[in-house]
Amino acid sequence: MPTLVLLRHGQSQWNLENRFTGWWDVDLSDQGIAEARAAGELLCAKGFDFDLCFTSVLTRAIRTLHLVLHEMDQLWLPVTKNWQLNERHYGGLTGLNKQEMIEKVGAEQVKIWRRSYDIPPPPLEPGSPYDVSSERRYAGVDVPRTESLKDTIARVVPCYEAEIAPALAARKRVLVAAHGNSLRGIIKYLSNIGDDEIVGLEIPTGKPIVYELSDDLAVIRRYYLEEAEFRRQLKRR
Amino acid sequence: MPTLVLLRHGQSQWNLENRFTGWWDVDLSDQGIAEARAAGELLCAKGFDFDLCFTSVLTRAIRTLHLVLHEMDQLWLPVTKNWQLNERHYGGLTGLNKQEMIEKVGAEQVKIWRRSYDIPPPPLEPGSPYDVSSERRYAGVDVPRTESLKDTIARVVPCYEAEIAPALAARKRVLVAAHGNSLRGIIKYLSNIGDDEIVGLEIPTGKPIVYELSDDLAVIRRYYLEEAEFRRQLKRR
Repeated sequence: MPTLVLLRHGQSQWNLENRFTGWWDVDLSDQGIAEARAAGELLCAKGFDFDLCFTSVLTRAIRTLHLVLHEMDQLWLPVTKNWQLNERHYGGLTGLNKQEMIEKVGAEQVKIWRRSYDIPPPPLEPGSPYDVSSERRYAGVDVPRTESLKDTIARVVPCYEAEIAPALAARKRVLVAAHGNSLRGIIKYLSNIGDDEIVGLEIPTGKPIVYELSDDLAVIRRYYLEEAEFRRQLKRR
Repeated sequence: MPTLVLLRHGQSQWNLENRFTGWWDVDLSDQGIAEARAAGELLCAKGFDFDLCFTSVLTRAIRTLHLVLHEMDQLWLPVTKNWQLNERHYGGLTGLNKQEMIEKVGAEQVKIWRRSYDIPPPPLEPGSPYDVSSERRYAGVDVPRTESLKDTIARVVPCYEAEIAPALAARKRVLVAAHGNSLRGIIKYLSNIGDDEIVGLEIPTGKPIVYELSDDLAVIRRYYLEEAEFRRQLKRR
């Protein structure tokens, strides 16, 4: 059965500090490392095997994948890294914490951005220290200066359709380690979730989301791989 | 300038115990992890940038590569994993330490194997716990039951010619994290080393070997990236 497992990266240093990260390449926190390892342990204990993996070009997602695969003794699997699976680009909000943002633009504006599907934050200012557009890893990429959730999903879905769906159609078991908003894109697409609803869908870090799919990639079942369930199973042994 | 950096994986648990490892998937020791990180730090300090990476399908080489790339902030680089870059398959010697081997086959026979280019150890016995031939990672691969150094090099060189050389010819900077004997294969090929001499070429763990190449991939210069040199440079800053 084609199986797709989605995994949001473990806690990053800026998740911890409550700062907007986006395309800024922040590493995992110690807790994030532990979360990734626990996800790998859980997948392993539940008997998951994968055939190939996808991740973004951001360190926190790549390391999460590596830590998971190490726990599973599956580091040898092929891994494709694609910028289209990157986190949403938060534009001028990059680097700000929630409090700084409220001070900068006001609570009303913050509420609008938080609840909006298609309104992007202001673009990254020229000369911003968070401008990654000239980095080697984005050679040939038209790096956005900000993105709405809609913009993010508009570049995630083509990646899903071009690379991930064909692997699933070939009955491969696929693991995607990525980010809150890029995973929202895949979930919106597969589970047919409305624009308003997807904005509010919270995806916890380090908790695998399993899609069991039919041969024509219709969703048979979607569920979180639960630690609680895992612990119950351990007890039954 | 096309640049090729070869890196033997850091110390593994079985290097530490002086046991023949071959295709058995032994993890890095703590020292091996430290060696890999130091290699990454050294490459970073010397200003190396890579365009793509190759490694084997064995955990100790893959993790070495990941630790190096993490130190260099280049985890986003594309990585190709290829079984042809695996360590030599030590057949029936797999799992034995040097002392056990001498007891099993006698010091004379050990000397012959150690010095021989084309005599393989006895094949892995049927039912050996070290038989990896049915593992998923080797699906479609005709897994050897033993290899001479010549056998190893005979599958390393086609991988070099088919995958690594074309990247170098396209002026890419390539990092290969692999094993003592698979790296001997590449070094023998590039530096035109004789059969007898390559057997005795020791490749230290975690020490980058740099090849500077001409556009037609002739060797301009080969050197170890030295920690000593690195330390001298640090002092000069």
